[in-house]
Parts: sequence; structure tokens; C-alpha cells
Amino acid sequence: MKKLDLVVVGSIGIDTIETPWSKQEGILGGSVSYACAGASFFAGTGMVGVVGEDFPAQNIDLYRRFGIDIGGLEHKPGKTFRWSGVYSEDMNHRQTLLTELNVFAEFSPKLPAEYRHVPFLFLANIAPALQLHVLSQMKSVQFVAMDTMDLWINIARDQLLEVIAAVNLVTLNESEARLLASEHNLIKAAKKIRGWGPTYVLIKKGEHGAMLFGPDGIALIPAVPLSEVIDPTGAGDVFAGGLMGYLARHQEVTAPLLRHAMVRGAVMASFGVEAFGLNQLQHLTHPEIERRVADFEQMIRIV
Amino acid sequence: MKKLDLVVVGSIGIDTIETPWSKQEGILGGSVSYACAGASFFAGTGMVGVVGEDFPAQNIDLYRRFGIDIGGLEHKPGKTFRWSGVYSEDMNHRQTLLTELNVFAEFSPKLPAEYRHVPFLFLANIAPALQLHVLSQMKSVQFVAMDTMDLWINIARDQLLEVIAAVNLVTLNESEARLLASEHNLIKAAKKIRGWGPTYVLIKKGEHGAMLFGPDGIALIPAVPLSEVIDPTGAGDVFAGGLMGYLARHQEVTAPLLRHAMVRGAVMASFGVEAFGLNQLQHLTHPEIERRVADFEQMIRIV
Repeated sequence: MKKLDLVVVGSIGIDTIETPWSKQEGILGGSVSYACAGASFFAGTGMVGVVGEDFPAQNIDLYRRFGIDIGGLEHKPGKTFRWSGVYSEDMNHRQTLLTELNVFAEFSPKLPAEYRHVPFLFLANIAPALQLHVLSQMKSVQFVAMDTMDLWINIARDQLLEVIAAVNLVTLNESEARLLASEHNLIKAAKKIRGWGPTYVLIKKGEHGAMLFGPDGIALIPAVPLSEVIDPTGAGDVFAGGLMGYLARHQEVTAPLLRHAMVRGAVMASFGVEAFGLNQLQHLTHPEIERRVADFEQMIRIV
Repeated sequence: MKKLDLVVVGSIGIDTIETPWSKQEGILGGSVSYACAGASFFAGTGMVGVVGEDFPAQNIDLYRRFGIDIGGLEHKPGKTFRWSGVYSEDMNHRQTLLTELNVFAEFSPKLPAEYRHVPFLFLANIAPALQLHVLSQMKSVQFVAMDTMDLWINIARDQLLEVIAAVNLVTLNESEARLLASEHNLIKAAKKIRGWGPTYVLIKKGEHGAMLFGPDGIALIPAVPLSEVIDPTGAGDVFAGGLMGYLARHQEVTAPLLRHAMVRGAVMASFGVEAFGLNQLQHLTHPEIERRVADFEQMIRIV
């Protein structure tokens, strides 16, 4: 087994996704699938999640092809988590049509021994109680990031605040940051959330980029412009995965590294949305990533 | 009279602006007021516009305090152009309540002799016929930028396309670019518009920054994050004015200068929206501008 730099926990789902141009069923999704795929190009990444008896073996093969360690992947009796959503005409809004927790309803991950001493941890979107449960099993973690969603902000706020207080970086999208902080202005919202414990707050704005708030001030990054977006599902997870993978590879978190990590996050997310599910990421090569990083840096460089 | 580097033509209005927190009447506005204010900190700027008999003398004093040359400002019998609008709760949408053309209805600007040899020209938002009329009077212009609005795209498309074909840079907001090009994707929209003549297309995205499309590829710039936005009116005009003023001061247009000019545009716009009308810009000092430029460059720098 290769050395692990990063552990990621989150959901694994079989998704049905409908865009204005296409409807795709049986897509491998879930926050941990997307985040691990994004991270796998930079760091030795271990996945913590659960699937049911109906989970196709080809998805396991796909994880392996990404080089993702699946030592923390549990197989349980029952059906895999299922999600179905439909995008608006301009792809900027999404409506959830169906959520079936299935095996996730009683998931209580027990981390493999070799996962417990990994230095970087990403708690991707999943119930805050599960995030806490995973965090509590880590023995010498150096840097922890977390994501969440409006559901947990609404129904599990207290537990969510416990996770937030225990991590180094919180990532949210714009509307989640506003909802969580009860504050429309993003500077004020980030300041409030940082006041609850985390050193960094990263606000993801989809096609408009991302803002990182930390002790060194604000870092801003646009999104990579694309002439075609096929499926935005999981873009935030791929972004966070790319960012955490890059940090984990360097085994430290500094202001300049965070900016380079944001560039990687944006670039990985841009590849991710160019096809349904992991279809684009699975064929991606390092030279392609480096070329897009260079092109993107050229677009955002001032001099 | 100081040397002129830039001529700006556009509307001058007396505005009534309603935000979720305040309603202000009798505000000096119009595209040329905002654009000249933004440009005046960088370049010798001459204004071409028209006002009526009701135009308050204090507004003329204000233009002079900015250092704006008003040799091209005409006084006509009748009332000044009036506009009134109301912003949505989140300030991201605006509804026009009233537009009274008044003296603008028959405006046909005749440029002062000393304006006709100025090298930089900004055709701010105004009827395309007027933009063409001003352009036709320029004798040795080197670089021309233009702005427009949905109204002209809808009712004067042919004349608008004539202006677009004759200028070096077209600036539009996101929805105008989509409407003009009949294309939702901004890369494709910009490509289509560049195909009609202009070397550069600058798409303004308000709080999400701006994208410049040109022969050197794409340049991206976020907006300056603000903890409070009081009045977004004129932000795009101030942005374009700051950008054109910076280019005009340097008397050339290169890829690096354009990026620095975009930074100035974003910074000037950020000051502009911190108060109603020109209230913030009129008290602004060069050290304040330079401090915010430095802070902003720190936020967007990758290394």
C-alpha cells in the first residue's frame, strides 16, 4: 500500500442527474467520490465511506484506477445511498428530487489502524455526527478541513458547530455561509464563522471562483472559464479535494501554498464539470493538469 | 487648461435611488458622471454631455473638483435627464422605475476643437447614434472603448453593431453580453462579439469581477470584497472610467497595462459603491487608492 497523506470521509451515492440537455442514471457520485478523485492526483488518498450490496464492482475498479486507497470503504447489507437532482436552464440552480439514505442511515465508520495517523483529513459533506466520529479516531492529525450543506445547518446546527470548532478550515458555498452565519455579506459571514474556531473559511462561489479568509487576510481566485459545462455536480467536492490533496502532498499549510492549492482546486473542478460524474477526471493526465494550471495562472496573473 | 488624455461621452442624470435601507433623491448620476469621476484620478479627462436649466450649479462645481474638463458639457433649455430605480433585497437586481430623456431627446454633441485630437475615447452608455456622432468628430483617436445597455441592444441593434465594429474595446455586463450575442456561455459570447470587430471584449460581473477577452487570451479579475455596499449604481461606469483613465495616462494599451488598468477599475468601482452617487469618490485621495490597489493585489496574487 502506498503512503497515505490524506483521509477523506463523506457520502458515496448512485446519482441520477438531469441537466437541460441530458439525463443520466446510475452515476457514481457522493462527496467522498468527488473529493478523493480530485485529491488523488496530488496525494496518497484514503477513502472512508459505505456502500450497499448493489454497488457495482466497476465503481470499485474506478476508485482503484484513481489510486484511491479503499481500506476505509465498508460494504453493508442493503442499498447504496441514492440521490437524484435536476439543474435549471442556466445550470446555476439545482433541485433535489430524491434522497434515499439506505446504508448511510446507520453508518458508523471505524477507521483502519493505518488511517489514524495520517496528517491531513477532509470531512466532506456528511452528517456532522459522522464527521465528529471520524475526527475522534484520528491520533495525530495536523490539518482538518470540513464541508457541509444547508440540510445540516438547518437540522443539526449544534453538532455542526462542534465540528466547526474542531477543524482548521471550513468550506461552504455562498448560500451556506450566509445561512450558517445569518449574515448576507460574505466578509462578515466569514469573520463570524472564523470566530467559532477555524483558522480558515473558504467560500466557494461556483462559476465565480472562491474566497479564502484567514489570518493573512483574503485570497481571491476566479473559476477557470469554460466554453461548456456538462454537469456541475460535485464541483465543490473536487475543488476541496484538489486543494486538500495539494496541501497534503506538501505536508504543510502556508499562505502561498494555500493559494497554489486553490489554483489546483479550481483547475480540478473545471475538469470535473466537463463531463457527467467522474467521466472526465478518470481520463485526466498530469500533463493536462499542469497545462491548465499554467493557462489559468496566466489569466489571473497581474503582471 | 490641463492636457486632455481622454474624452468621455455619456448621459448625465439626476437620479432617485432606492436601496433596501435608504431612498435618495436628486443624486448626480449618469454614465458620463461616473466614468469621468473614475478616470479623473488617472488622466486629464474631458466630458461630453448635456444638462438642462434645472441642473444644480453645485454639480458643475463637483465636476471641477474632480478636475474634469467640462468644455464639452452643453447647457440646453429644458430639464436634465432623470432616472429612478429600486434595488432588490440582495442589491443584485435593479428595476428602473422612471426614465425621462428631457434634454437628451435632441442632443447632438459638437465636440470642442481641443477634444478632437485627444488619443483615448470612451463612449459610455448612451444611444448608439450619439456614440457614432461623437466618434465621427475625432480626428486622431488611438483607442476607443464603448459601453451600452439592454435597451440599445433591443431597439437599436444595427447602429449598435456599427459602433461595435468601429471601436477597440467593448464593455458589457454579463446579461448584456448574453443578450447581444444570443449566447449564454460567456467565452462563446465574447468570441462572437470580437468577431464583429473589436480587439477586446470586457465582461463586467459586478461583485464577481470582470473578464477581458483579447488577442492575448483571457484576463480574469475578481471584485474587491467589501463589507458594505451602499449603492451599486454606476459601478460599471466607474470601473470602465478607471480602466480607461489608467490606459490614457500611459498612452498605450498592452497586455500587462490592461491588467493593471482592470485592477484600477475594480478598485475605483469598490470606492464608488461605498456611498450614494459620487459621495465617496469625491473625497477620495491618491494614497487611499494606492493603498487599496496594494491590498487588492495582495488578495489576487498567486505567489
